[in-house]
Amino acid sequence: MKIVAFGGGTGLSTLLKGLKAFPDVDITAIVTVMDDGGSSGIIREELGVLPPGDIRNNIVALAEDESLMAQIMAYRFKDGERFKDQSLGNLIIAALTKISGSFPTAIESISSILAIKGRVLPVTEASVKLIAEFEDEQIVIGESNITKKNGKIKEIKLSGLAKPFPKVIDEISMADAIVLGPGSLFTSIIPNLLVDGIPEAIKDKPKILVANLMTQPGETTGMSVEDHVKTVEHYLKSKIDRVIINSQKIPLEVLKRYKEEESEPVICKTESFNFFKISMVKIIVDKMDGQKKVRHDPYLLAHAVRQISMNLIGDKSDIHF
Amino acid sequence: MKIVAFGGGTGLSTLLKGLKAFPDVDITAIVTVMDDGGSSGIIREELGVLPPGDIRNNIVALAEDESLMAQIMAYRFKDGERFKDQSLGNLIIAALTKISGSFPTAIESISSILAIKGRVLPVTEASVKLIAEFEDEQIVIGESNITKKNGKIKEIKLSGLAKPFPKVIDEISMADAIVLGPGSLFTSIIPNLLVDGIPEAIKDKPKILVANLMTQPGETTGMSVEDHVKTVEHYLKSKIDRVIINSQKIPLEVLKRYKEEESEPVICKTESFNFFKISMVKIIVDKMDGQKKVRHDPYLLAHAVRQISMNLIGDKSDIHF
Repeated sequence: MKIVAFGGGTGLSTLLKGLKAFPDVDITAIVTVMDDGGSSGIIREELGVLPPGDIRNNIVALAEDESLMAQIMAYRFKDGERFKDQSLGNLIIAALTKISGSFPTAIESISSILAIKGRVLPVTEASVKLIAEFEDEQIVIGESNITKKNGKIKEIKLSGLAKPFPKVIDEISMADAIVLGPGSLFTSIIPNLLVDGIPEAIKDKPKILVANLMTQPGETTGMSVEDHVKTVEHYLKSKIDRVIINSQKIPLEVLKRYKEEESEPVICKTESFNFFKISMVKIIVDKMDGQKKVRHDPYLLAHAVRQISMNLIGDKSDIHF
Repeated sequence: MKIVAFGGGTGLSTLLKGLKAFPDVDITAIVTVMDDGGSSGIIREELGVLPPGDIRNNIVALAEDESLMAQIMAYRFKDGERFKDQSLGNLIIAALTKISGSFPTAIESISSILAIKGRVLPVTEASVKLIAEFEDEQIVIGESNITKKNGKIKEIKLSGLAKPFPKVIDEISMADAIVLGPGSLFTSIIPNLLVDGIPEAIKDKPKILVANLMTQPGETTGMSVEDHVKTVEHYLKSKIDRVIINSQKIPLEVLKRYKEEESEPVICKTESFNFFKISMVKIIVDKMDGQKKVRHDPYLLAHAVRQISMNLIGDKSDIHF
């Protein structure tokens, strides 16, 4: 079974970590390259290479967990004026881009060095930025500025025409199911759908949306599952077939902390959608800042995606939910 | 046959590139870690890791020539305010040092990823700098300052006690022959001999010195082959058994250019030493700055080292000079 999943860095990599455990799933991750903040943003600006961060996260997710090369790719410098917070994996992808002259070739090379399961592709080779029009009619350019603005996004588009990387269209054409997310709605999922021809290419494929667990301040504040679905369908120009939502209760003290950051659970208001409810939320202690965070369990999420995909493509022999 | 070669980055790596072609030679490179300039110096200062540059050069020399990982290790950034001139391989060794907590473990890890022939070891784990006393009695601290000073060095020592990395002593004890150089006399060869116990460990082993082809301004100006040998023996506290010198003529126009940079051929004044004369100079065009430079031919140099080593250890069956 071939699953083609769209997203950005963090959420999508969670799904991939889970999916790689299933030997019968062939995975292709199609990843945004519209980021302009952090280590990726610095590389984009100083080295003139597409932002490699989201791609890198997904490559590492599909590598063997304990491999030294995966540790090298995931390493982030903690000291030094010029190196602090820089991702070594981003620098390696940037260097390979310079060596080979091509960003997709660099990704292919590092994927082969890490012997990853499946493949990771940039959605486009075009160097474009996100442009958001907010409800207050302000226009903001650039992913990091859009996130900072902390407003309600009315419409999002790209700064220029972006043609899809050709292999992306090939992979979609062979896909048994398309998965959107998990990932930031306007900065990880939708940017993929803004690339020329992507909505048309996935139009007739079974489509699964993994709804986010919590709203993101300044991006999806106040949005329900239904709002997420409607927004995605607006850019998709076709219908989502299934939505994976969380049905597990989140402990009060964790909800309280999220609320302080203006983040709330993405709730489902009605039963009218063709939802696929599953408990796959997991509360983990993020070692970076010592806070309890709500995260998808990679294996449970992947299991759900696999089962729904089988269901959608008509092979119901292995479904035991 | 086990050859243990001492040196720094550039010269020693030339010998290693040649030696790896001989299946009957087991190579151990023992490398200085006293550098404090360039990318290595920045890493030493900002990340608190031993300078990895010389080690990296030798690891790359022992790797498969065209391998992508070797290209990654050898890559140097050409753009960007914070990355320009930084060596990606140095950053990878620094990151592996942080991940494993140990510089030698980092070197072992990257050597294993590159599947190198033989091994590269730091001469010490101590973070020490070079201190030179010049003929004008000025004391200068740090390799890069010593090179810049452009004076005549009277004596060189380390800024503190440096114990040898334990494996270095093991490797020496198993060596059939010891090779010193090629490499900068005071900043690549002798620093190894300043590490506690190294001269004693190699005292009873057959020792070959590869004399430099050209003098280095500010380091060996005016020094003959004999001067090089005497200086090395001063720090070695024992005798060199054979010296490899160049007997090939260097074209006048190349000599002229070197002379402009205050560099002249290292000439041999007498026939009194137990020299092993061989033509193995090769003039190559350095692509980095478009200038013709005099360099050892890696294969011819390695061939000579191998033959002399066989001669010295008494196995004369294969010598056909």
